[in-house]
Amino acid sequence: MKHVSACFGCEDRKMNTSEKKKPVLKTRLTQRLEISHPVISAPMAFAAGGALAAAVSQAGGLGLIGGGYGDAEWLENQFRAANNQPVGAGIITWSLSNNPDLLDLILQRAPKAVFLSFGDPGPFAAQILSADVALICQVQTLRDAKHAIDIGADIVVAQGAEAGGHGEKRGTMSLVAEVADYIAKSAPDVLLCAAGGIADGRGLAASLMLGADGCLVGSRFLASNEALVHQNVKNAVAAATGDITLQSSVTDIVRQKVWPDRYKLRVLKNQFTDRWHGHEAELRKNTAEHENWVKGWEQGDTEASSVVIGEAAGLISSVAPAADILNDMVEHAADLLAKSRLYLA
Amino acid sequence: MKHVSACFGCEDRKMNTSEKKKPVLKTRLTQRLEISHPVISAPMAFAAGGALAAAVSQAGGLGLIGGGYGDAEWLENQFRAANNQPVGAGIITWSLSNNPDLLDLILQRAPKAVFLSFGDPGPFAAQILSADVALICQVQTLRDAKHAIDIGADIVVAQGAEAGGHGEKRGTMSLVAEVADYIAKSAPDVLLCAAGGIADGRGLAASLMLGADGCLVGSRFLASNEALVHQNVKNAVAAATGDITLQSSVTDIVRQKVWPDRYKLRVLKNQFTDRWHGHEAELRKNTAEHENWVKGWEQGDTEASSVVIGEAAGLISSVAPAADILNDMVEHAADLLAKSRLYLA
Repeated sequence: MKHVSACFGCEDRKMNTSEKKKPVLKTRLTQRLEISHPVISAPMAFAAGGALAAAVSQAGGLGLIGGGYGDAEWLENQFRAANNQPVGAGIITWSLSNNPDLLDLILQRAPKAVFLSFGDPGPFAAQILSADVALICQVQTLRDAKHAIDIGADIVVAQGAEAGGHGEKRGTMSLVAEVADYIAKSAPDVLLCAAGGIADGRGLAASLMLGADGCLVGSRFLASNEALVHQNVKNAVAAATGDITLQSSVTDIVRQKVWPDRYKLRVLKNQFTDRWHGHEAELRKNTAEHENWVKGWEQGDTEASSVVIGEAAGLISSVAPAADILNDMVEHAADLLAKSRLYLA
Repeated sequence: MKHVSACFGCEDRKMNTSEKKKPVLKTRLTQRLEISHPVISAPMAFAAGGALAAAVSQAGGLGLIGGGYGDAEWLENQFRAANNQPVGAGIITWSLSNNPDLLDLILQRAPKAVFLSFGDPGPFAAQILSADVALICQVQTLRDAKHAIDIGADIVVAQGAEAGGHGEKRGTMSLVAEVADYIAKSAPDVLLCAAGGIADGRGLAASLMLGADGCLVGSRFLASNEALVHQNVKNAVAAATGDITLQSSVTDIVRQKVWPDRYKLRVLKNQFTDRWHGHEAELRKNTAEHENWVKGWEQGDTEASSVVIGEAAGLISSVAPAADILNDMVEHAADLLAKSRLYLA
């Protein structure tokens, strides 16, 4: 089992990290990654650019650029936008398999971590670990958690189905605890983060109680000033309840992304999903709808295109700077943990 | 808003409650219900008989008899088996609508609470509340939580999709926090319990962090000595991981229960679900399979019939007395909460 080294980057980065917020919560994650807050921002494809990742890292968490399907130019631009903050990058694993050179590009930027999800991380682990970069593997089942640990993951993110974007079926509550049991028994040096349905200090505190070392947060940071989505999308998230999301393939079909069938995309229910969810075969043949959807996406039409978000939408009521989101989350969690002695009779 | 009165039953019951375990965790739930531990055992149809409910109540929680679809003779037998312990009873709401006299039967036994789930509790609320019995409404969405509060629920149970038995789509993690926000803003005297994926002290502690006053536990108590299911079923639960459950209608179809489409039943994947999930129309017409399933159920054939369980199966590795399960859960949660100050930097 490889331990993440104390030094992830250049001297500039070390100087930047000295500006970070005073730690409030201390966990194995903050110690291992030398960060102040046990929170990682999810590498949301398209939405988590360099500005968001940098803001999260600068505020004391670990920010990840969402490399998604892997566009080299976009990735380079976003690393540039991160402005030498110690960020990491995520990439969709099955997509990386189609374009493995992208991993070279990412590693050349000396990322603080590489985050792989949705596919077999095995073929890429050695290259990442030999570059002395932390390997974060997101998993949706216990079975995949075991595999991630077998191939050398430093950090496992156990993602429940309430998460936004792509996911599977298991809920966060029991998945995290079950993976924690496995890690405790079989690989105690591996760290664990909870993901799915976590948008504030309550979810962070609950994650720690379940046995995680921290959490991964997506939806809440989508509704941040820095996220690269249309303002209408952020406003729709702030207005939504958690009841009005669904997992569906229609967004991937209309935007012509060929995902493995086991992963569905959680989005807000809207006119687009009302029309097409359950009519996937028909949608595949409808090129006009593809154009409508792309136009809607570009224009911020939250009914004609898609709002990719988790059930945590119901916990989000504002659009705010990422640093404020992170600081509020950690302070709230610390307050809950400090007060937990009041439950003791 | 009606407050639950201090006295739920006869003098005998008061004497029995004095035998209870010393409180370890104190919440609004323990105070309001005058119980020692903030844990309610789920009224699992067929499985949660009087012995299980009584064991949970005697150990300091609140035990609920699973009235299920409503068989008067079974209910009377189970109240008798509860041996004057202060238990409550649950019943499937849409089923009660077909046979409302059962509520009279339950209220005649002076239950500590009546638990309604899966349907509109509105038509039954006045009768329960006017009998000065605590009304517990289990909900699967924020929308239904609002309705439960509107019709006078004393306690709302927010049940995530990882739960065993019937459920819906939302995950526990965000649903609980979102309902907690609504209660804090609109009905602060209403109590909240988390359900779904909770099988040990970690889930209980996490529930409190999410803003709940306690939790409802089903799967863990199914694998108790007292549960009224075949020993093979309990052993199958203890052996399973959380990865091998699914929500499906095939069990309801084969046992000829006509459930509203929004609710699916979470069961272990087995030969029965492998054969029939996705072939529901064919199953409806297959009377031989009905007979096979019933025979398998009676004989404890966990492949030919169904094991009704949640994703928390992955957190369960033993069959134990209900009192031990409850005491371990509460002591573990108390320990986690006491140690949570160690996270504070």
